[in-house]
Amino acid sequence: MKEEREPVAEHITNIAQEIKTAILAMKSPSLLTPVRSLSNVLFDTKEGYFRIGENVKKRTLTAATVKTFAQTLRMMGLSKELIKSDDTATKREAYYVSKNWGDARFSEQPESDSVMDDIEAMLRVNREQMGFIPGEHGGTVAGALTVIDRDFETKKEIRIDCTRFGSGAYSIPSSVEHLTFETSAKFILAIETQGAFERLNKHKYWKKSNCILIAMSGVPTRACRRFIRKLADDKKLPVYVFTDGDPYGYGNIYRTLKVGSGNAAHINEYFCVPQAVFIGVTPDDIEAYKLPTHPLKDVDVKKIKDLVKNDPFFKEHKEWQKALDKMAKQKVRVEQQAFAAHGLNMVMDKYLPEKIANSKTWLP
Amino acid sequence: MKEEREPVAEHITNIAQEIKTAILAMKSPSLLTPVRSLSNVLFDTKEGYFRIGENVKKRTLTAATVKTFAQTLRMMGLSKELIKSDDTATKREAYYVSKNWGDARFSEQPESDSVMDDIEAMLRVNREQMGFIPGEHGGTVAGALTVIDRDFETKKEIRIDCTRFGSGAYSIPSSVEHLTFETSAKFILAIETQGAFERLNKHKYWKKSNCILIAMSGVPTRACRRFIRKLADDKKLPVYVFTDGDPYGYGNIYRTLKVGSGNAAHINEYFCVPQAVFIGVTPDDIEAYKLPTHPLKDVDVKKIKDLVKNDPFFKEHKEWQKALDKMAKQKVRVEQQAFAAHGLNMVMDKYLPEKIANSKTWLP
Repeated sequence: MKEEREPVAEHITNIAQEIKTAILAMKSPSLLTPVRSLSNVLFDTKEGYFRIGENVKKRTLTAATVKTFAQTLRMMGLSKELIKSDDTATKREAYYVSKNWGDARFSEQPESDSVMDDIEAMLRVNREQMGFIPGEHGGTVAGALTVIDRDFETKKEIRIDCTRFGSGAYSIPSSVEHLTFETSAKFILAIETQGAFERLNKHKYWKKSNCILIAMSGVPTRACRRFIRKLADDKKLPVYVFTDGDPYGYGNIYRTLKVGSGNAAHINEYFCVPQAVFIGVTPDDIEAYKLPTHPLKDVDVKKIKDLVKNDPFFKEHKEWQKALDKMAKQKVRVEQQAFAAHGLNMVMDKYLPEKIANSKTWLP
Repeated sequence: MKEEREPVAEHITNIAQEIKTAILAMKSPSLLTPVRSLSNVLFDTKEGYFRIGENVKKRTLTAATVKTFAQTLRMMGLSKELIKSDDTATKREAYYVSKNWGDARFSEQPESDSVMDDIEAMLRVNREQMGFIPGEHGGTVAGALTVIDRDFETKKEIRIDCTRFGSGAYSIPSSVEHLTFETSAKFILAIETQGAFERLNKHKYWKKSNCILIAMSGVPTRACRRFIRKLADDKKLPVYVFTDGDPYGYGNIYRTLKVGSGNAAHINEYFCVPQAVFIGVTPDDIEAYKLPTHPLKDVDVKKIKDLVKNDPFFKEHKEWQKALDKMAKQKVRVEQQAFAAHGLNMVMDKYLPEKIANSKTWLP
């Protein structure tokens, strides 16, 4: 069992003990979980992320709740097993494991996911600490960073030097809680596209500017966000974010990285990166760097309106409101790769150094 | 300039010379490119991949073709520049570079992609050799393999030991032509999902069975296919493919890896993996391993019919026809992770060793 997951196993044991005690006392056992609907989600302006509110639902064992109740206990049992054996399971695997639970088996994965989310919220930990990992790819890393992992069998330290992968890179695993870091880098640069990442990696932008490059490949996965957060916290590094200049880059990629997502508010505490700042591409950059653009589509226009009006993050920041208004007026969007119009390496030799040096051009 | 790309630069120079000669002789210059429509695509049963036929179109410089003609020449020029400077550009960047070509600029990326495909077919090389790289992620690797790359600046050798990534992995770069390999592995295992890959990696299945694990994360990208092909060719390794048991896993993931795709027939020669065999999950496995299943959707049923009736690869192989018929009769599909119903490590301890040892259970 890994030390950092021990408290989770203990917490599970304690809850199970309480339930056993209630049953032996001939009382109905019950479980308390925070309400996970949007009505119980707040944007914490001080901490800077979506967090779950105080509302709690009590699930008492009755004839009507017996199945979900049993499923919750079995899922907690599976989590404890995974922690003890230092193993992990994807959400999908956990669903299949339930096929052996007799009447407590799940018939569809959304059911098991929902129970998992409940337990996550109940224990106030993230699913990865319970041993459940996402099945998705976690982003790629290159630059001035040594990741310290452990051999699963021998428990020996493994040191992964991210300057040593040539044109390739380090692929972040689904679960990153056990990783530690050594670095002399001055900042983290989180990049939307794999293409932009590869250009910067190939030309060793990380060496010239002493930084760590991370490709998010679109909306960052949980593992990617957690990795950036852990690294930035541990090493007190600023995080600069570089995406396309469009409502998707701002509202989906950057916003999810910085403050998390509304429908996973019970774990945003771990998966947001409050220290992230947005360096580009901004609507101002289009003028400053004379970038080729594309007209906004109807769906972009709609998305801008929605962000300005309904998204608590964008409502909170005047600078973002101004930027979105400007985009709506310019009626154009711009891509990371647009800098190529002025030479393939302009993004590296001019744009990024200038933007990073001038905090007045950033967005919060 | 990298040695292996020199012949491409020479080829470009020769074509440019011919055009210059024609112009100086007051003749209309012309370019010959293979016809890339499906009518000129054949399934090469001997070589085992989709290949382009003998039909050629001649593009002669006239008032009507002047723009495309100029664009083709400029794109060839850009390719030569990239080769000389040992640099690369994504398709998207190449499109943006054209914004400086005056009247020869492209107004949409599909136009520049099409010109790039023409040149690719004309030169009979793949786009990566011309310096144009895909913007997509190339798959992840772990196991008994050392990848040998080169430092872009110092040209020094970089050795990447894929047993040394802990729970993480090596991320394949977009362009792999310059990579070489050292390995003592007995086979390559190409896996559909990141989740299945991570389980096998975590438990060091690659050590127990002396193999190389590659996660394709869905339909393999060009870089991923080329990497597997190059590695399998260089080191004479068999390639075992492990996907979900559904028409998508068979018809999209496995088929694309093994024989390439119909609409990129001019480069399948480089991007197919003819040595690939399918080890599972097959419809027979559902019975043999008592796996939980899901009912086929209408779209699955339709896709099966389409594969049996229209796909030259599946039409070629009786074994596949039988498997697809069986799936249609069983009316169910099965996932890689379904083995978890019999214990999380069953896939590793029982299923994979048994299947790999018994070639009678494979599909071609």
